[in-house]
Amino acid sequence: MPVHLAAPDPARIKPVAGVELGFAEAGIKKAHRRDLMLMRLAPGSRVAGVFTQNSFAAAPVQVCREHLDAGGPIRALVVNAGNANCGTGDDGVAAALRTCEIVAELVGCSISQVLPFSTGVILEPLPVDRIESAMPTAFASLKADAWADAAAAIMTTDTVAKAASRIVVIDGRPVTVTGIAKGVGMLQPNMATMLAYVATDAHVAQDALQTLVREVADVSFNRVTVDGDTSTNDSFVLIATGQAGGPEIIAAEPGHYAALRAALVEVAQQLAQAIARDGEGATKFITIEVEGAVDEAEALRVARSIGNSPLVKTALFASDPNLGRLLMAIGNARVVKLDTSRVQLWLAAQRVDGTRDEVRVIEAGRRAPSYREEDGARVMKPDEIAIRVDLGRGTAGTVVWTCDFSYDYVKINAEYRT
Amino acid sequence: MPVHLAAPDPARIKPVAGVELGFAEAGIKKAHRRDLMLMRLAPGSRVAGVFTQNSFAAAPVQVCREHLDAGGPIRALVVNAGNANCGTGDDGVAAALRTCEIVAELVGCSISQVLPFSTGVILEPLPVDRIESAMPTAFASLKADAWADAAAAIMTTDTVAKAASRIVVIDGRPVTVTGIAKGVGMLQPNMATMLAYVATDAHVAQDALQTLVREVADVSFNRVTVDGDTSTNDSFVLIATGQAGGPEIIAAEPGHYAALRAALVEVAQQLAQAIARDGEGATKFITIEVEGAVDEAEALRVARSIGNSPLVKTALFASDPNLGRLLMAIGNARVVKLDTSRVQLWLAAQRVDGTRDEVRVIEAGRRAPSYREEDGARVMKPDEIAIRVDLGRGTAGTVVWTCDFSYDYVKINAEYRT
Repeated sequence: MPVHLAAPDPARIKPVAGVELGFAEAGIKKAHRRDLMLMRLAPGSRVAGVFTQNSFAAAPVQVCREHLDAGGPIRALVVNAGNANCGTGDDGVAAALRTCEIVAELVGCSISQVLPFSTGVILEPLPVDRIESAMPTAFASLKADAWADAAAAIMTTDTVAKAASRIVVIDGRPVTVTGIAKGVGMLQPNMATMLAYVATDAHVAQDALQTLVREVADVSFNRVTVDGDTSTNDSFVLIATGQAGGPEIIAAEPGHYAALRAALVEVAQQLAQAIARDGEGATKFITIEVEGAVDEAEALRVARSIGNSPLVKTALFASDPNLGRLLMAIGNARVVKLDTSRVQLWLAAQRVDGTRDEVRVIEAGRRAPSYREEDGARVMKPDEIAIRVDLGRGTAGTVVWTCDFSYDYVKINAEYRT
Repeated sequence: MPVHLAAPDPARIKPVAGVELGFAEAGIKKAHRRDLMLMRLAPGSRVAGVFTQNSFAAAPVQVCREHLDAGGPIRALVVNAGNANCGTGDDGVAAALRTCEIVAELVGCSISQVLPFSTGVILEPLPVDRIESAMPTAFASLKADAWADAAAAIMTTDTVAKAASRIVVIDGRPVTVTGIAKGVGMLQPNMATMLAYVATDAHVAQDALQTLVREVADVSFNRVTVDGDTSTNDSFVLIATGQAGGPEIIAAEPGHYAALRAALVEVAQQLAQAIARDGEGATKFITIEVEGAVDEAEALRVARSIGNSPLVKTALFASDPNLGRLLMAIGNARVVKLDTSRVQLWLAAQRVDGTRDEVRVIEAGRRAPSYREEDGARVMKPDEIAIRVDLGRGTAGTVVWTCDFSYDYVKINAEYRT
C-alpha cells in the first residue's frame, strides 16, 4: 500500500507545448497492457540526461549516452516496459539501435536523434519484432494531453502512476513543468529501474539544461532509497522545448535560472517522494534530515547509512523507537573522527499540514535526560516519520526520503518470479 | 532455525591450559539466566584484540583499547550480556572501569590488567551494582573445562551456542586452540555485537600475536555479513597462555607460525560460519566466492555487494535463480572500469561432503548459452548454496559467508522490543 499517494488527476497534469505522447500494447512481457510509450519532441527542443552508475549499464543506457554525446537535437524518446535489455551484450545494443531506427523512420529523423529506454527483466533478449509491430499504433496515438497515461504506461510493479506538474511565471511568461516517473525501489525485483522524464516549455540554453539535470537529480531522485540497490537502467531526462518563448535562460543569469530550477526541483522532488511512498512493501514514508555536517557528502553518507540499515527499517515498520539502531547506523557512516559526544537526534511525527510533533531522543551522544519512551512511541506511530540528526561538526546538511522494511518487502521480492 | 548448526559437544571443546572460566546470574536484563562470564588467565599469558570500526564504539571497547595499549599483562576478561554499555558517555566508561576494579580485587591484579566486554541493549545505563553482587559467584566457579558453558553464557538472541576446538602438533608439542563466539548478525536487534574469544596454550611472542589477531580476523569474522550493519561492540580477542611450552613462536620463523595460524584460522572460520548459519531468520547458508579480481579489496567489495543486497538475499530465500539481481549487485560494487564482457558467474548446491553441483549461469557478461532455468532452480533448492564470480581482471580473490533474508528476519527485528 503506497503511503499517502494517489494516482495523478489527469486534469492537473498539464501538457507541455512541444511534447506529444503515444502508446501501444506491444505484448513484451504480458499481453493486453500498454508497455510501449513514444514521446515526440518539437524541433528546437533540447534534452539532457543522467544515468545509472552501475557497471552493468543496460544497452539502452549506453545508446542514450552516445546519442546525447553526438549532440544532434533529440526528436523522440521511446520507452518499453517488461524487458530491461540489460546483460544482453552486443545483441542488446543492436536491439536498442533497431528500436531507434523504427522510431526514426516514423518521426522522420536520424537514428541518433532518438533516445531508447527499457525497464523490466534483466538478461533476456529484447523482442524487437513486437516493438516494431506496435510502434505505428503508438505513433498514430501521439497527442499533447496524455502525461497521466504516459505515467501509467511506463509502470512495472509500481502500484500507482507517478506524475507532477507546476506552472510558474518567468520573465512575465507562464512556463509549464511536467514530469513522470516510475520505480518502487532503487532496483525493483528483476523489473529493474527508476525512469523519470521532466519536460518544460521554457527556453533554456543547452549548457544550462546540462547543469540543471545534474542539480535537480542531486536533490531529488538521488535522495531516494528503498533498498540501497542501484538499478542497471536508471535514467532521468530533462526536456526543454522552448515553446514558451522569451530570451534563452542561461546559468549566468541567476534570476530566471533560479525560478526555473525551483519549479523543476519541486516537480522532481514530488516524483522522488512518490517513489519512496510506493516503495516495495512500504507502510511508512520516512524523511531523514542530517545537519551539522562538515560537507554535504558527509551528511548524505550518514542519511543513507540510516536509510539503508535493515535494522532501522524493520524498527520503523514496527513503530519501535529503537534508539540503539539509529546510533549504530550513524556510527557506521565512515565519518572521520566523529566526536560522538556532539551528536543529537530527534524523532518526529509529520502531520499532514507539514508541522511536526518532535521529540529529542539523543543529546551529547547519549539518551536525552528529558526522553520518555512513551514520547518516542507516540511519534513513531503515524505513517509519516522524520528522523533528524545534528552531527555538531559544521553547517552542511541534506535530506533523504525512504520507506520502512516490512513483511511485504520480503513477500514481493521472494515471490516475484514464482 | 540455524542452518546445519548444532550446539557444541562439551567433550569436543578442549580446555586450554592457563584459562579458567566462571559464570553467574547477575539479572542484568532478565532473571535466572547466566549473563556474566569471567575468564581468568594464568600469569605469562599474552592477549591481542581487534575491535569495531563504528564511531560509537561502546565504553568497554574504549577501555579494552586503553588497557591493551597500556601493555601490562592481561589477567582477566569479563563479559556481560543484556546491556551493551554503549551511548552511555563518561558514566559508561566509569561503569566499565568499575567492573574491571571488581574483577581486579578478586583476581589480585591491577584494573588495567582486566578487559571488559558488554553486549545487549544500547543507550541504557549498565547496572554495575548487579555485576558487583554476582561477581563472587562467577569467581568461585572458575574452572578450565567450561568452554561450552562460556559459549552459552555470552549469547543474547543467538539460538545456538558457538564453540570450536582443534589440537595441532607444533615443534613436536600438542597445542590446543579453542574459541567461542556470539552474534547472529553484524549487529543484532538492539542486542548489539559479535564477540569472539580464541585461546591457545601456544607460546607466542606478543608482536606475533598482534599480527595473528588481525590476520585471523581478516579471513574469518570480517568475512561474515548478515545485514551489513556493524555493531558498536564487536570484539575479537586472541589469547596465548604459553603453557604448551617450547620456544616462543615468532612471525619471522614461518614454519611454526604458519602451523599455529592455520589452526587459529580453522577455529575462527568455524565460529564465523556458525554466526552466518545462525543469522537472524536464516534458512540458507551462503558462500560467496569472488575470483579474478585486481586485488583482495576489490574482490571483497564485490562479495559484500552481493552478500548485502536485500534483493539477492530475498531471492535466495525464495530459492529463485534470479540472475538479474546478481548482475545488478556485481555492477554496484564500484569496481573501476569493470569490463562486464569478461564477467562469469556460477551457482552451486553445496553437498554435505563438500562437493558441489555447479551450473554456469553468466558468461561474457550475459546469460550463458548452456544455461537452463531448471538447472538454476535445482542448485538453488538446497540449504547450502555457493555463488562464484570471476571478474576476469586479475588473480586476487576472497570468500564471504552470509545467509538469506526471510520473513523471520523482519519478524525478529520488528517484534524484538514489542
